[in-house]
Amino acid sequence: MFILTSPDPKQLLNSFVEVVIAGGHKSVKQIKASGLKLRFCTNETQATRENFVKKLQGMGFDISVAEVTAPAPAACCILKERSLRPHLLVHNDLVPEFAEIDKANPNCVVIGDAAENFTYANLNEAFRVLIGMEKPVLISLGRGRYYKETDGLKLDVGAYMKALEYACDVQAEVVGKPAKTFFESALAEMGVSPQQAIMIGDDIVNDVGGAQRCGMRALQVRTGKYRPCDENHPHVKPDAYVNNLAEAVDMILQQL
Amino acid sequence: MFILTSPDPKQLLNSFVEVVIAGGHKSVKQIKASGLKLRFCTNETQATRENFVKKLQGMGFDISVAEVTAPAPAACCILKERSLRPHLLVHNDLVPEFAEIDKANPNCVVIGDAAENFTYANLNEAFRVLIGMEKPVLISLGRGRYYKETDGLKLDVGAYMKALEYACDVQAEVVGKPAKTFFESALAEMGVSPQQAIMIGDDIVNDVGGAQRCGMRALQVRTGKYRPCDENHPHVKPDAYVNNLAEAVDMILQQL
Repeated sequence: MFILTSPDPKQLLNSFVEVVIAGGHKSVKQIKASGLKLRFCTNETQATRENFVKKLQGMGFDISVAEVTAPAPAACCILKERSLRPHLLVHNDLVPEFAEIDKANPNCVVIGDAAENFTYANLNEAFRVLIGMEKPVLISLGRGRYYKETDGLKLDVGAYMKALEYACDVQAEVVGKPAKTFFESALAEMGVSPQQAIMIGDDIVNDVGGAQRCGMRALQVRTGKYRPCDENHPHVKPDAYVNNLAEAVDMILQQL
Repeated sequence: MFILTSPDPKQLLNSFVEVVIAGGHKSVKQIKASGLKLRFCTNETQATRENFVKKLQGMGFDISVAEVTAPAPAACCILKERSLRPHLLVHNDLVPEFAEIDKANPNCVVIGDAAENFTYANLNEAFRVLIGMEKPVLISLGRGRYYKETDGLKLDVGAYMKALEYACDVQAEVVGKPAKTFFESALAEMGVSPQQAIMIGDDIVNDVGGAQRCGMRALQVRTGKYRPCDENHPHVKPDAYVNNLAEAVDMILQQL
């Protein structure tokens, strides 16, 4: 049996105290000590994996870049495979992930959670690149609707993706959770089958729904993004609920 | 018989020379001289009717504010009827149209083509107002995808409407062309039935489709937004094509 954990990075970074109290970093150590494989699947698109990992390490997590599956590197694989040269509408801090990709004379648009880069001018520019193509190709690093930051709720990449989809009459190819291919690439990197893995996450649709569609079992933690109404979700039902990551790890280790 | 013309204002203002060559202002005089009623139905949401009319008058058009049907005043009627207090995400120049509307403690969002006001901060603010409501109410002054300005293509209000719709899981109420209620209000203001009116416009979907759904006959002019592929449109077929407004008016006056 192998374990795949999938905490939401924004929630994780914004709720440092909660995670530490819940013993997240101790749970990670426990999992590694048990010999189980671990992978962090994140939709983080506001930082490179390097910086994401540094932040988590600063919080006491034992984690390395090689253990992180994130949308930008997944998108880079697609770009290389299909000889696509992207026009980037992403966060400044994410740009280094695309360092090795040819961006001259773009033939697609890659959109991430660009935050302050979602200006009127930048959105019009991305739109013009798309509408100028015979068959516009739009790759979106996630389809999140919104998220919470210390200064309030913010529109996520999914909202801007919908704006461009509508304007250009195209459908975006979504990289990142809950895309099946995203979970599959994480499993491939670990070298395990879906039946051998368990996903632990707080998002009923993006984490639990995505993992289950891929054939994995999925636990929902009652922390972070979790809301009591998730337990009545019309389409998605986790294999089990746990109060926090520590409880999930205890449960799994007991069954070994 | 009465005539309802519906030139696209952005196209009109951007293609001054074309319109003047096509004799638009002479055609308007001809119609008025014949005793027919005339109404300009526009989706203009970057200026008050007063300023819109001033621009057209400056181009030689004989037109008054009372002859213009536009989304903002139509939205104001809805706001008053339903005691809605809007948070406005509109162009600065449109704000005076809402001068008499109570905007304290907003219980809906009105979105127009805000252009430079479509900033990251303003979009997040409109989103927060919506998501804070038990049942979000979003009123959109049009559903255009994009338009052309001298410095290139720009995303129109419809794209930003879609972003907010997706983020809040709501459907916007669209005021303006091609909404049936918009054409109906123009007819009501003229005091005529749809069968007594003819629409002349350049946009196959917003002008021709909207007018026909309302029961009017509709002529498409082969100027402005018109594209040859419009003549193979899968759903909308105008009652006739004309090369320009002057030809439409000649045709109508001959049949009187």
